[in-house]
Amino acid sequence: MQRSECQALDAKDLLAFLRQQFYLPEGIIYLDGNSLGPLPVTTAIRLAAVLEQEWGKGLIRSWNTAGWITLAQRVGEKIAKLIGAGSDEVIATDSTSVNLFKVLAVALRIAQQESKRRTEIISEAGNFPTDLYIAQGLTDLLGGSVTLRMVEREQILSALNERTAVVMLTHVNYKTGQLWDMGQVTQAAHEAGALMVWDLAHSAGALPVELKAVNADFAVGCGYKYLNGGPGAPAFVWVHPRHMHQGGQPLSGWLGHATPFAFTAEYRPAPGIHRYLCGTPPILSLTALDCGVDSVLAAQIVGGMKALRNKSEQLTQLFIELVEQHCGKYGLKLVSPRQLAQRGSQVSFSHEHAYPIMQALIERGVIGDFRAPDILRFGFAPLYTRFVDVWDAVQHLIQVLQLEEWQQSRFAQRNAVT
Amino acid sequence: MQRSECQALDAKDLLAFLRQQFYLPEGIIYLDGNSLGPLPVTTAIRLAAVLEQEWGKGLIRSWNTAGWITLAQRVGEKIAKLIGAGSDEVIATDSTSVNLFKVLAVALRIAQQESKRRTEIISEAGNFPTDLYIAQGLTDLLGGSVTLRMVEREQILSALNERTAVVMLTHVNYKTGQLWDMGQVTQAAHEAGALMVWDLAHSAGALPVELKAVNADFAVGCGYKYLNGGPGAPAFVWVHPRHMHQGGQPLSGWLGHATPFAFTAEYRPAPGIHRYLCGTPPILSLTALDCGVDSVLAAQIVGGMKALRNKSEQLTQLFIELVEQHCGKYGLKLVSPRQLAQRGSQVSFSHEHAYPIMQALIERGVIGDFRAPDILRFGFAPLYTRFVDVWDAVQHLIQVLQLEEWQQSRFAQRNAVT
Repeated sequence: MQRSECQALDAKDLLAFLRQQFYLPEGIIYLDGNSLGPLPVTTAIRLAAVLEQEWGKGLIRSWNTAGWITLAQRVGEKIAKLIGAGSDEVIATDSTSVNLFKVLAVALRIAQQESKRRTEIISEAGNFPTDLYIAQGLTDLLGGSVTLRMVEREQILSALNERTAVVMLTHVNYKTGQLWDMGQVTQAAHEAGALMVWDLAHSAGALPVELKAVNADFAVGCGYKYLNGGPGAPAFVWVHPRHMHQGGQPLSGWLGHATPFAFTAEYRPAPGIHRYLCGTPPILSLTALDCGVDSVLAAQIVGGMKALRNKSEQLTQLFIELVEQHCGKYGLKLVSPRQLAQRGSQVSFSHEHAYPIMQALIERGVIGDFRAPDILRFGFAPLYTRFVDVWDAVQHLIQVLQLEEWQQSRFAQRNAVT
Repeated sequence: MQRSECQALDAKDLLAFLRQQFYLPEGIIYLDGNSLGPLPVTTAIRLAAVLEQEWGKGLIRSWNTAGWITLAQRVGEKIAKLIGAGSDEVIATDSTSVNLFKVLAVALRIAQQESKRRTEIISEAGNFPTDLYIAQGLTDLLGGSVTLRMVEREQILSALNERTAVVMLTHVNYKTGQLWDMGQVTQAAHEAGALMVWDLAHSAGALPVELKAVNADFAVGCGYKYLNGGPGAPAFVWVHPRHMHQGGQPLSGWLGHATPFAFTAEYRPAPGIHRYLCGTPPILSLTALDCGVDSVLAAQIVGGMKALRNKSEQLTQLFIELVEQHCGKYGLKLVSPRQLAQRGSQVSFSHEHAYPIMQALIERGVIGDFRAPDILRFGFAPLYTRFVDVWDAVQHLIQVLQLEEWQQSRFAQRNAVT
């Protein structure tokens, strides 16, 4: 394969124009959109207007006149289109962690209404830590009446039994990029009498998700990865309509109230997904998320999530082939699944010197990230990553390994966020 | 009194220059900074840089290079100066409601370590509803082992007893502007063996608060009112050092972990106030809060919170005198305390037609707000409100009442946010 072949692939790529939506700095090959999506051009324009017109001139009136009060719901409606959900089933609010606390508490309550013996939340030991931590926080608060059981990935399905209340999994594993079969796992959870909670952090905006079709119960997801909502963007929460009216969630702040501006003393949850709101949403960050979601929805005119997934598969496949062909001898080992259907939109390789290798790559302008203890992680967001970026990134990786650049002492020191 | 006397007061006001920090639209008298502070000029400039330089060019690297990872803590350090707290005792994060859930859960646990018989959270029936709702959400989650007892303001102190676990109050009442004596109430709570949680939503940035001096246990507060952090700005949480190391809080997201980037499966709380972080903070909104807090800290060179409080007292006093002198005959009744020392930085009057009267005022460019069922609420943020604004606002109010403008049908329809 030659670089010119990658250029040819880009030239005939119907999704290529979508890249123009983003500000992408010169000299950078950005393979970390799975950690922080890039800045959409519209976000800077829109935020300037929100600041000067809506906040500056409109002041408090903009809650009505600029529609701030409905923004969480409107962004939720847009996200719903990306995850196979009904338009009134999703709301953008709080963080993934906070939303997970809400849905875990409700899922537990529903499961225990059926049987008090259901006292276990089951999750993967290698799940993203915040999910495990939130479940631990909830079970600690409940005084040990419920426990979090962390099992290895391969044992998840066999661990389900009559004590299982909730199965909580992340669709795409943050380290390996390995995918769960959402339909299969959801069905297994239901057959065991448990409820299914999905974390879509590395899925929403990267590959097709069909929450209603797989009959899941609850889902949460992240706004700042493939949805390009900006650093720390608000997250989202989805609830299947069959659970929508079963009482409130424990973080029952005023904006989740049926009539927040009646200022009554007793909490009464809003009729639908609004009850998953808590406090007042951060409008500036939520506006940026709105623009980010729009950048993904723009793909609808060229095939939407299916077309994005198709390109993502080609990008990750090309990367694996090129790395294994040129860098295999340097000790890199593929951690992500080799089968396309089992892989998300990222590729991870392990290497005993993964940290300094990634630092050397970043200095060359190839931005991926490191995950402890030994993972080099490369995200291939199909919305703006070109085939030629894959080619060029591999050339840099070859250089870093061949010239042993990573051995330079300045690459050894760890940053706060790595 | 004449308008010229108000102009003279502004001319000799040492705080007057602080107004220049804000974008305040022509033709508007803004008396709703207690609901949403105005836009600081620096916020628009700073956010443009964060968008274009930090997010746009820096991308994921900005968590380190632009210090995003320490922003919550740095904003907390600044807020600490306004509320009489140590610099490592405050963190800016989540919403007031979410933070209240965290501290209530921890306060309950501490109280029950002392005695299992302490099963009541006591609050004022007229507290801001989200505080009551969050306490209800927590007690519901705990299955009724703890209850929220809402009592009338006058009965709070006599309601404290050996069953009281936590006293939760808002320093300045959102409706009436009435102040609690923080020292007296905190002492009474402690004498009853209970812990004291303060909500500073209408205090931080408006009047001096001395959390350490009054020996409070926990506090939360709002970023978008007197701190000028923008719509839905992140909130803050303060914890007395004596409680800092007593276990984690239930919303134990990854950024509250001792080593978040070690990605271990077991939650271990960070050593200090960082454990009150949960998910990834919304950096755009947090940046705006940083600028907003700076706008308040700017008053330090002319006397800080004490000077601001002094001006606030003069403004509210002038407003009450002018309204009672000129509008008394139209049925307006003062709801806020007449004594300066018992009043926050707002003045509330009741009127049976409060809603359309406020709408008519807003159409005239005098922006206060309405609180159900019959309250006209006027906030006097001393950072940017002039004496002449008080004068002019009252002239408009006189006109609205004299000409019965509020009877026009277009003022009758309620907005979503009022």
